[in-house]
Formats: sequence, C-alpha cells, structure tokens
Amino acid sequence: MEKQERRYGNQVVLLEGAALGADLRYTPGGLAVLTFTVGAQTRGEEGPVYIPVRVLGKRAEALAEALEAPVGVFVVGTVETYRPEGGGERHSVLAERVRVFALAEEDLTPPDGKGQRRMKGGLSLFAGVGNLARPVEVSRGGSTPFARSVLAVSRTEDQADFVPFVAFGALAEALEGLDKGTPLYLRGRLVHDSWTTQSGERRFGLRVEAEAVRRRRKEGREKPLPKLAEEADFPDFPEDLPF
Amino acid sequence: MEKQERRYGNQVVLLEGAALGADLRYTPGGLAVLTFTVGAQTRGEEGPVYIPVRVLGKRAEALAEALEAPVGVFVVGTVETYRPEGGGERHSVLAERVRVFALAEEDLTPPDGKGQRRMKGGLSLFAGVGNLARPVEVSRGGSTPFARSVLAVSRTEDQADFVPFVAFGALAEALEGLDKGTPLYLRGRLVHDSWTTQSGERRFGLRVEAEAVRRRRKEGREKPLPKLAEEADFPDFPEDLPF
Repeated sequence: MEKQERRYGNQVVLLEGAALGADLRYTPGGLAVLTFTVGAQTRGEEGPVYIPVRVLGKRAEALAEALEAPVGVFVVGTVETYRPEGGGERHSVLAERVRVFALAEEDLTPPDGKGQRRMKGGLSLFAGVGNLARPVEVSRGGSTPFARSVLAVSRTEDQADFVPFVAFGALAEALEGLDKGTPLYLRGRLVHDSWTTQSGERRFGLRVEAEAVRRRRKEGREKPLPKLAEEADFPDFPEDLPF
Repeated sequence: MEKQERRYGNQVVLLEGAALGADLRYTPGGLAVLTFTVGAQTRGEEGPVYIPVRVLGKRAEALAEALEAPVGVFVVGTVETYRPEGGGERHSVLAERVRVFALAEEDLTPPDGKGQRRMKGGLSLFAGVGNLARPVEVSRGGSTPFARSVLAVSRTEDQADFVPFVAFGALAEALEGLDKGTPLYLRGRLVHDSWTTQSGERRFGLRVEAEAVRRRRKEGREKPLPKLAEEADFPDFPEDLPF
C-alpha cells in the first residue's frame, strides 16, 4: 500500500503568463494529467520563458476546459523531477494551484519562430531551500564569472527534486568553493533551456538563474541527502549566456 | 463546534528579508502566536519594506528559538485581515512556511531612524485573485495618474481578506472605470505603510503596489462577495507617493 507522505514544502514556484498547448491525457491507472506551457516575457524584449507545467487529478479535468481559449494563468507549484514512461528524468512544474485570467490581443507577443506567442510581462520565480548536490563549479572564461551547481530539495522523507542553477558575477564569486551538501537558500528566475552534455546529448531542463543565494544554518533536523542526488543531471555551461 | 473550513488558496505572499523583533505569546486559549517583522530593501536604496508576520501553533514555538539571533527568513503565506482583542481590524501576513538562513553583517543596512536594520535586497511579493470591494478611484492631480481600490480575496466560503492596492501610470489608467465586484488578478510589491483617514485617524496597513493587474473571466463557480466587503477599510491617498 502506498503511504501518503508528508510534503515538506521546501520550495515554491510562481508563474504568470500565457497558457500554451494544453493537453489532457490519462495514465493507464486512470489519473488525469494536464500538461501545458506557460509562456512569458519576463525581462522586456529579452528573456522569453517557456515553463512546462503538469496538473494532476480532478483539477486537471476542470482546468483543461478553461485553457481551450488563449488565457493567462497564475500558477503556484514546485519544480518536480519525474520519470516519464519512456525512461530518463524530466523536469516540470507540478501545479498546486492555477488561476485563470483573460488575455487581450495586445497582451501577447507576435509569434516567434515556432509560431508560439508569449504574454508580455509575467513572472517565473523559484525560491527554495536545499543542499548542494554537487560542488559549485566556477568558470572565469567569459567576461564575467559564472557558477553552476544543482540544489537538491527534499520533497518528502525519501524523495528530492533537483534544481540546476547558474549564477553570474559577484554572486558566482560568493558561491566559489561551496561543497556538496552545503545547505542553501536559492531564489531566482526559473527558465527552461537546453544544453549539450559532454557525451554530446541534447538535454532540456529547468534551471534557475540565481538572483539571491544565502547560506543556511545546519539545522539539527537536517536529513542526509537522498541517494538520488548522485544521479542528478548536471548541466553543462549553457551555449548562449544571457549576456 | 467550529467547522474546519477549506481554504481557497486564492492568494500567495512571498517575503525574503531579515526577521526583526520576534515575540512569542499565547492566547487565553493556549494558542502560540509568534509575531515578527520582515525587513527588506527591495528596490536598492529606495523602498524599505517592513512586513508584519504571524505564525500560529506548534511551529510558532519551534521558530521562536531560531529567530533569537539575527537571521534571514523566507516566508510563504497570505495577507490576512484579523481582529485583534483591542478591537478594530488589522493586517498581517499569516505564514504557512518559514525557512531560516544566516545573515552576515554586510547583508544588513545601517540602522534607520528607529534603530531597525533591514536585509539588503530581498523580496515582498503578493499575487492573488479576487473581486474589487470598491470601485477604482483614479486621481490625476500628480505628475502621473494614480489609482486605488481594495481587492476582496475569498479565504473560505464565509471569509475574505481585504487587500488595498495602488497603481500608477498606464496601469492606473487601465483600471479606470472598473466597478465593485469586478474579478481581477493582482500582483505587485507588498508594503506596509500609513495614511490618514478622512476623519483624521492615522492608519497602518498592508498595501500592494501593483505591477500587474489582469481581468478575470466571470466563472460559473464565482461566489458573491462576503458581506464583510462592505466594511473594508479604504485607504486614502498616501501622504508620500513613492516618486
């Protein structure tokens, strides 16, 4: 019997944007799964953001109808690491709450190369606490220091979600030397982008562009990192730096 | 017997800043109530923000100890309208989750006139859906149009929280003419400030400086406004505009 595990609530994601490509399916077990993408323009002309979202259960069915027309959504959820049937490991935002609002024509950007439109403005924010799943790596090859690592965020006693993040400039330098296991608070812009692994594979995944990182105190209640941390995919340096 | 009402989850508040003045008390009924203020500097040198927070129950006791030293906190919660024992109506952020992180000396601003220090940077964000509790009033007296109203956010079937908000410039103009009852999505910076009512009383309260406002579609499930909406305090124009 599957036990109902208490969720820790160690992270939160807020999204605000256009709901794109809503698709309702059912698992073999009969669970409704609604997927859609939130498209927003969080930094003026730059910085288009497309975040994959999943909604599970009865709410998925109710929401699917509302997302047939082009609408805006506000989503509160969490970054989840999940294993699709085809194998591998994927990222999406698991929605806890979705609220729908109307979009006018002038709220949307012109279609991009793929014909997708985004909401002008909007929000894509991650904040959470966890432990570094990898030591921080800092690169000084470009015009500004660049740091990357992965935050392991405990979801339940036995499960964690893995949130790759990057940091630039002074923030990257402040992270230098932090080792695996270091407890951190991380907040930043959540983006979904692609990179090529060292073995040449193309990967897509969520990633946080850090805006604030703070050391956490080791708390007495701190649990050791779940074993999954060893398997966390570690993104290579992005091909296109945001500046 | 008090029934356990389902909370709607129509709003969310994110705070990130220094935890100031933590104070643990107990109600006559034995409920632990921890109050503290989150101090942040959300807009560079300008824009100090002090937000009153309440934590209830067992978590309040556990947290009180952690907040004895100067620490930073990340809070997920909601704006609540509550009635203190002395009478009247007050606003604070009711915390659902609080996470603590370390603060170094250089993370804090120098003491202000009252000796309070804030965290440099930080966050104070409100997002939620509700209905206008008052028609929008627009003033064109200053250098830029200025709009104000109050969003009534249903908390349970019978209760609502009232969130005064202001908007400036084009956003203020877009709100002009919206009547009581209009369903809206509102997102912006949450601030705690003071104003003088028409009868000369000094009031303190939470207020949102709108960054995004969207019309919501009238949904079939929409409930009429709770009666409390009539009593919502309506802030006067602030004495000090933020620009």
